[in-house]
Amino acid sequence: MDREYASSLLEGAVTELSRLPGIGRKTALRLALHLLRRDENEAVSLGEAIIKMRREVTYCRCCHNISETDMCGICADGRRDHSTVCVVENVKDVICFERTGQYDGVYHVLGGLISPLDGVGPEQLEIDSLIERVATGEVREIILALSATMEGDTTNFYIFRRLGTLPVKVTQLARGVSVGNEIEYTDEITLGRSLLNRTDFAI
Amino acid sequence: MDREYASSLLEGAVTELSRLPGIGRKTALRLALHLLRRDENEAVSLGEAIIKMRREVTYCRCCHNISETDMCGICADGRRDHSTVCVVENVKDVICFERTGQYDGVYHVLGGLISPLDGVGPEQLEIDSLIERVATGEVREIILALSATMEGDTTNFYIFRRLGTLPVKVTQLARGVSVGNEIEYTDEITLGRSLLNRTDFAI
Repeated sequence: MDREYASSLLEGAVTELSRLPGIGRKTALRLALHLLRRDENEAVSLGEAIIKMRREVTYCRCCHNISETDMCGICADGRRDHSTVCVVENVKDVICFERTGQYDGVYHVLGGLISPLDGVGPEQLEIDSLIERVATGEVREIILALSATMEGDTTNFYIFRRLGTLPVKVTQLARGVSVGNEIEYTDEITLGRSLLNRTDFAI
Repeated sequence: MDREYASSLLEGAVTELSRLPGIGRKTALRLALHLLRRDENEAVSLGEAIIKMRREVTYCRCCHNISETDMCGICADGRRDHSTVCVVENVKDVICFERTGQYDGVYHVLGGLISPLDGVGPEQLEIDSLIERVATGEVREIILALSATMEGDTTNFYIFRRLGTLPVKVTQLARGVSVGNEIEYTDEITLGRSLLNRTDFAI
């Protein structure tokens, strides 16, 4: 291996890069050679940004979103509606909802979905902390915003049961035809749901 | 932007990662979140491997392949045939030829191909140093092993002309049907060349 790459340093960088998801040794080599051709600063800032991010990013103690402080910017924002909590699978989903510009409540990041096949049980997710948050009485509505998959449905159902008789309204995202999608290519379960949950026509 | 990612450190890492070729902001975010989920050591070794590689890898003064020392392992290897020089476009091509296990000569890495459209002229490539190497009289054969593209052909022709009357044999890679390829799907120029350069049948 060492011989193959003419340099154990190159070999080392390729090995580390190829640990990343979706990056094989061939792509890793391409990336490493790209970095070798570019200015030294470029490689150094990439390396340092990765190390700094991993060392200093922490998680919000309230919603478990990534944060640089004990409490994230969204949870610390007094202008947001703290009585509405949108339950999402991961950090990426928070970014997706923030991009819509349609939501002014707060979040709760589970850190995954219940998936017995992948060995993920409820105890590995931030479900206990969600129940505690609701039990304080400050939350009026929980929006279950998980993926429309079997794992998402299972997790929704589990959370719903755990909430038990706590006085909180539980809602979920509307299911229906995606904006821009053609009827012809929409699956029948989605179409069925979109008929069932039809809304008044508005322009 | 800062707001969008909930952390300027995450934002910084995403920006740096998305500078890499073939990696957009979406993939960069996926990679960064992967690193956040994994052990801290993993991110630190990735970052350090990149920085160390870029800072310490240098180029062989003889063949311009990457190296950790003034002269690369191949050029310093006394068991290799130093009178045969394989001229390649880049470092990756050296790795490709080494993998064949069929070559015991040395290399000369041009660092690119002549490409007027991309603004790459002969003076930006290691062509002068190749001519100097041949002029020492120690090289008996030059193998032009550039890609079978217009840029490769142009560079081959330029080198051939520059070599002028220097007493060196100039060869090029055989052109023909790729091993494993079907005749039906081989282009007519390759087929024509493979007819013209047919070799004695051997088993």
